[in-house]
Amino acid sequence: MSKTNSGNFFEDFSLGQVIAHATPRTVTAGDVALYTALFGPRFAVQSSDAFAQAVNYPQSPVDDMLVFHIVFGKTVPDISLNAVANLGYAGGRFLAPVYPGDTLSAVSEIIGLKENSNSKTGVVYVRSTGYKADGTEVLDYVRWVMVKKRNAANPAPAPVVPELPGELAPQVLGNAVPMLDLDGWNNDLAGSAHRWDDYAIGEKIDHADGMTVEEAEHQMATRLYQNTAKVHFNQHTEGEGRFGRRLVYGGHVISLARALSFNGLGAAFHVAGINGGRHVAPLFAGDTVYAWSQVLDKQPLEGRPDVGLLRIRTIATKNRSCADFPDQDSAGAYDPDVILDLDIWVALPK
Amino acid sequence: MSKTNSGNFFEDFSLGQVIAHATPRTVTAGDVALYTALFGPRFAVQSSDAFAQAVNYPQSPVDDMLVFHIVFGKTVPDISLNAVANLGYAGGRFLAPVYPGDTLSAVSEIIGLKENSNSKTGVVYVRSTGYKADGTEVLDYVRWVMVKKRNAANPAPAPVVPELPGELAPQVLGNAVPMLDLDGWNNDLAGSAHRWDDYAIGEKIDHADGMTVEEAEHQMATRLYQNTAKVHFNQHTEGEGRFGRRLVYGGHVISLARALSFNGLGAAFHVAGINGGRHVAPLFAGDTVYAWSQVLDKQPLEGRPDVGLLRIRTIATKNRSCADFPDQDSAGAYDPDVILDLDIWVALPK
Amino acid sequence: MSKTNSGNFFEDFSLGQVIAHATPRTVTAGDVALYTALFGPRFAVQSSDAFAQAVNYPQSPVDDMLVFHIVFGKTVPDISLNAVANLGYAGGRFLAPVYPGDTLSAVSEIIGLKENSNSKTGVVYVRSTGYKADGTEVLDYVRWVMVKKRNAANPAPAPVVPELPGELAPQVLGNAVPMLDLDGWNNDLAGSAHRWDDYAIGEKIDHADGMTVEEAEHQMATRLYQNTAKVHFNQHTEGEGRFGRRLVYGGHVISLARALSFNGLGAAFHVAGINGGRHVAPLFAGDTVYAWSQVLDKQPLEGRPDVGLLRIRTIATKNRSCADFPDQDSAGAYDPDVILDLDIWVALPK
Repeated sequence: MSKTNSGNFFEDFSLGQVIAHATPRTVTAGDVALYTALFGPRFAVQSSDAFAQAVNYPQSPVDDMLVFHIVFGKTVPDISLNAVANLGYAGGRFLAPVYPGDTLSAVSEIIGLKENSNSKTGVVYVRSTGYKADGTEVLDYVRWVMVKKRNAANPAPAPVVPELPGELAPQVLGNAVPMLDLDGWNNDLAGSAHRWDDYAIGEKIDHADGMTVEEAEHQMATRLYQNTAKVHFNQHTEGEGRFGRRLVYGGHVISLARALSFNGLGAAFHVAGINGGRHVAPLFAGDTVYAWSQVLDKQPLEGRPDVGLLRIRTIATKNRSCADFPDQDSAGAYDPDVILDLDIWVALPK
Repeated sequence: MSKTNSGNFFEDFSLGQVIAHATPRTVTAGDVALYTALFGPRFAVQSSDAFAQAVNYPQSPVDDMLVFHIVFGKTVPDISLNAVANLGYAGGRFLAPVYPGDTLSAVSEIIGLKENSNSKTGVVYVRSTGYKADGTEVLDYVRWVMVKKRNAANPAPAPVVPELPGELAPQVLGNAVPMLDLDGWNNDLAGSAHRWDDYAIGEKIDHADGMTVEEAEHQMATRLYQNTAKVHFNQHTEGEGRFGRRLVYGGHVISLARALSFNGLGAAFHVAGINGGRHVAPLFAGDTVYAWSQVLDKQPLEGRPDVGLLRIRTIATKNRSCADFPDQDSAGAYDPDVILDLDIWVALPK
Repeated sequence: MSKTNSGNFFEDFSLGQVIAHATPRTVTAGDVALYTALFGPRFAVQSSDAFAQAVNYPQSPVDDMLVFHIVFGKTVPDISLNAVANLGYAGGRFLAPVYPGDTLSAVSEIIGLKENSNSKTGVVYVRSTGYKADGTEVLDYVRWVMVKKRNAANPAPAPVVPELPGELAPQVLGNAVPMLDLDGWNNDLAGSAHRWDDYAIGEKIDHADGMTVEEAEHQMATRLYQNTAKVHFNQHTEGEGRFGRRLVYGGHVISLARALSFNGLGAAFHVAGINGGRHVAPLFAGDTVYAWSQVLDKQPLEGRPDVGLLRIRTIATKNRSCADFPDQDSAGAYDPDVILDLDIWVALPK
């Protein structure tokens, strides 16, 4: 038996299979600093222990997307080492705050399998859960990914396509936020005069700034998450591949867009849920990422006088300002510079 | 009202205006590690808790220039997002040591305003103060910056040019250093046989080494400080701009020169004050930074048998060795490779 | 006397000379995060405090190679600033675990000197020891390095070539590992079903993945270790030098190979000793590193029912897959793409 992990192929997955992923990871202040250096987020709750404590956190929680990337990274060696494409995510819920010192692990369950008609690939649907060493669940989400078959001649499994979660209901969200003491919320320090009440459904916000990505940056980020997908790291093979270049991890775009969104959504301190996300086009080093958001919905949280939710659709582009809100046309085709279409719930103070 | 911050223009400032800046920032061991990775400082007090404790610090303090950059970074979204040029700094005093775990915030006061004769820009003079969550002031400094007007037709304010601090007097400096126990100061571990007494006014020191800057490095550094100035991050717009390239944050040069200065000033463990600083020419990724220093003055600190101050002028160049001390000519014109002219007080053990 | 350290030349060393190196360095969670971001190691003991505690460590120890690089880095300003080539290492023993918060220092003894026949250079043999602030030794190793003479006319010292340690005996190794509680060792979380018993002498393992190195990455890594060797940082001079490029620190290749070796040696959580190492060819930014290993020997550790040792030879290449195990030919000549030949003892759970 080879000692080397060549990753699972489509035939290696079975419905209901549960995979406990390596390697557990203690998140530290070092990871937080790197995340800041790589993306430049400025949300006060995550940046300042003093601000966090003033509103009733015990200390600054770790950025939600850093938690997501670490949990996601753990699933890669087992789920997507032989992936052709990461097709989408849905139903992502942030269930508990994560603090420096917490150790994160991940488990995945195979919830759907459908071979493609070419017999060379199939779609694997998987629900992944991140949890702390004490068993506390911190995140779960569904993703589906197109994975190569080892051998086209191998028989197809019975196709099972799970019902994918649509828009998450507000009542399943918000548990990662303690009851806030809004007397401690200082708009100046938070960097935004606009709270939950100030946003209107339909409102569009250009996040204005652009951020150019370097190879060293996306490689460092993706290794920080212990994500081992080869396309991000190996110019020797990718130079001969589809794009002739290393591909930037899709999650890098999400984190950039989220950091950019501070400009216009500065009080949206928490990503409560991920309704869905789609990487519309690839990003490469040297490209500059911009983003804009639209408020799709606005909901209170039951029993929570402190925070409310905005459902935000965030579009990211490359090498194109978002001042005119580039989008899909009436036939659903995206502006050619759009790279990300993300649908999330964010929490803001009332 | 737009949710997006497009920054203040010259007309938006008024004399005496006080601005509490977002985002407070807890400095951690992670930030310190990144600073080490980005600049390579080797001053023993900041590098080793054991060394720091041996000389009577409770633990290693955070590098002074990291404190400066974080405080400076906070001021950018309010003061200099629409800046044409950062014209200078003066009167910078490091007032208290900062340790990992401390949260830094910044407040600025507008102390001068003078519209330029072209009516398109004006100079804003601002005193910024960094402080901890408990109110302890850790740094104050004055800078003046040329900011665009929103509209040249807008009326000019009455011109007020504040008296700028010149050379700081020794007696206002040194408070960030506890009384040192010099029995614990080990020259071998400190990396220098030369203490305060060993330096002479007029002495010139070539710091010898050169350091090449990469785009990923200066972007990571500048994001670490949550400095949002667009020119450092956006190749898409800067490629069409004045230089065709992203501009390296001027503070990056200061930190490189300070780290290089260890070679010749290894015992100069603390920057006590910044008399003045001028970015003579821009730095771009791919350039190599060198530095040399001259001792301008030498002063004891009243009541302090442990440390003395040297006033140091540090010149940094790009792509040019400093072995022959490149400088200004008799007419004041700089050698074309000079990029920084910095005038600081540093503390050394006696 | 010049204040600038221009480094020692061959004539400056004397047999038996002991050098206490600057600058002591407190290792933190920030350094660990950077190491993860730069190399992507996934060994569970170092990644997860919870995993480490489950097997009887008080918390995750710092990666062995990070300890090595920090100790090595301290020796550079005194030993190898004027080196022409780092010729080899031998006899490296990891003597005690290092945890975040520990402060590392280094001392070196000159154990051999031999001038080369050209009278322009000589070989310096040095034993370096890394220790904690409380005196605990954490690492010792021998290296030999070719250093320039200041002046070819200076007389040669009596040649002394020390007996170099060959393969380290298992009984001198393993002290950096506490007695493990293997009930707590979870193969799924560790990422490998293969323990010590599962490896056979002679077995070859392709580590499969490739990692491309960027200038910013190797510069940040090498500065993190406070290693000041000029060739890694100065494009202005190296552009005119032997290779026309900055040279990547040899230890960077070791860390990449070690991180890649997780794929096939996932349970080899600890580098217990370094029998020898040779940098066969230089690495430059833009190159992609691959690695493979062969099991040379397999030994129990006396009195240790928990762990056993494998002697592993790890070969790294650039821009060439290791699927066919590129090696030396019968005359000892290396495949032209080989860059590292490393001989180490690693510890695995039984």
